[in-house]
Amino acid sequence: METLAASRCFDGEQLRLRHASTALDCSMTFSVYLPPQANAGPVPVLYWLSGLTCTDENFVTKAGAQRYAAEAGIALVAPDTSPRGDGVPDDAEGAWDFGLGAGFYVNATEAPWRDHYHMYDYVVHELPALVAAEFPLRDGPAAIAGHSMGGHGALVAGLRNPERYASISAFAPICAPSRCPWGQKALGNYLGEDTALWRSWDAEALLRDGATARPLLVDQGEADGFLAEQLMPERLEAACADAGIEATLRRQPGYDHSYYFIASFVGEHIAFHAERLAGA
Amino acid sequence: METLAASRCFDGEQLRLRHASTALDCSMTFSVYLPPQANAGPVPVLYWLSGLTCTDENFVTKAGAQRYAAEAGIALVAPDTSPRGDGVPDDAEGAWDFGLGAGFYVNATEAPWRDHYHMYDYVVHELPALVAAEFPLRDGPAAIAGHSMGGHGALVAGLRNPERYASISAFAPICAPSRCPWGQKALGNYLGEDTALWRSWDAEALLRDGATARPLLVDQGEADGFLAEQLMPERLEAACADAGIEATLRRQPGYDHSYYFIASFVGEHIAFHAERLAGA
Repeated sequence: METLAASRCFDGEQLRLRHASTALDCSMTFSVYLPPQANAGPVPVLYWLSGLTCTDENFVTKAGAQRYAAEAGIALVAPDTSPRGDGVPDDAEGAWDFGLGAGFYVNATEAPWRDHYHMYDYVVHELPALVAAEFPLRDGPAAIAGHSMGGHGALVAGLRNPERYASISAFAPICAPSRCPWGQKALGNYLGEDTALWRSWDAEALLRDGATARPLLVDQGEADGFLAEQLMPERLEAACADAGIEATLRRQPGYDHSYYFIASFVGEHIAFHAERLAGA
Repeated sequence: METLAASRCFDGEQLRLRHASTALDCSMTFSVYLPPQANAGPVPVLYWLSGLTCTDENFVTKAGAQRYAAEAGIALVAPDTSPRGDGVPDDAEGAWDFGLGAGFYVNATEAPWRDHYHMYDYVVHELPALVAAEFPLRDGPAAIAGHSMGGHGALVAGLRNPERYASISAFAPICAPSRCPWGQKALGNYLGEDTALWRSWDAEALLRDGATARPLLVDQGEADGFLAEQLMPERLEAACADAGIEATLRRQPGYDHSYYFIASFVGEHIAFHAERLAGA
């Protein structure tokens, strides 16, 4: 593993690292924030999954999360959003909503994607093992959060792995990828046209199919241009209600899909996770 | 004036705007954050001047300052770092430390720079008049702050205009541009080779030449790679000490030149300015 950059930040350390990923069969870059408490011993960790077109850097440069992580004593781990590199296939027309920058946190089964696009295995298994070996991170459950496509990823990873994640939160997540254009394009290409196989990669479907209740916080801006067509928070709300799952699903008037929205509420999300991690 | 983007942020509004600048004879983009208090009446304003290669966006996307500005009820105005556009000359070799992105907040007197490079007039006169006419900003003194080249700009604008600025702060400022490679290249090109004419664009020289004492806060990272060759905070310290000016000049162990450093202390800078603005 190679350290690409290291900067002191809120008395902790913001790192950018590169390693050879087995799950993705390519070189991957990710970012880690270690709070000052990590100098004294292991700290709990929050994984952040970013949205379409993002890299590992968007969250750590734009969300202002390190201040809250430093206060709460939580490490932040931010992976990239897809495999990368010359050998990794991309959308034929270079579209921004599929292929590079758009791995959708699934394990692809279809050619040519299945050779590299295993972001689910990478985020849930390979990356946690890697950072656990390298940094002073506490054993036991982590927290997971994300934005848009990454909100979908956080919901799916969290709902499928109750033993691995103490809490889940999301900003403007794609709540029902089987039913929106972004998700249909991605799942259709990565997983094939049998939509029954999409259900385990769809938060709404996972809840309908009996996923275990998890502490869940979702914020959705009401001025988000993707709300109605792509995000569908009402489907998540209904699925939680029908399953009898208590979730905090908030509509934030006037907020859009940008990192200005994330910055405004990320402190509350970190406090939410800190409370669950403390009891985990 | 054209609004390019508007996002709700910490219950206030983050705006990006474009206008035709008279001082710079080109189209200019700048960013404004209006805190929620601006809905109830005029608020004081902090101008932020960015460093080499930056635009109006670096500070508003990376510093995490809106949270503190929303708490303190202060507007943030962030201009670009040089004139821009097809007709604006650039460094002959496209260097990043001179020309576009590197206006140094001076009024150029030499050809070909003098036709456009009047960032001092733009920042101190044109932009304040423009935003005062457009937004609910309080009359009277403003605050000014900046980073690196923009720290130099904030010191020079603040020291030269005690009636306009209630307080000055800087992160890793170029304290003595007449004495460092970045400054010598810029001042030599923009102002010509007579170094006597550089003194009114150099914070150390302004203090040596009798600038009025101003409330002043400077943070400098000790792991900043530009510290010794380009920034020279010891010259600012000595000039303040010799002039009997009380200034808070802090060395921050382990911090570098990045926005992670700025994010870590911008809350303290905004609190510093808020206190002075409240009494101004």
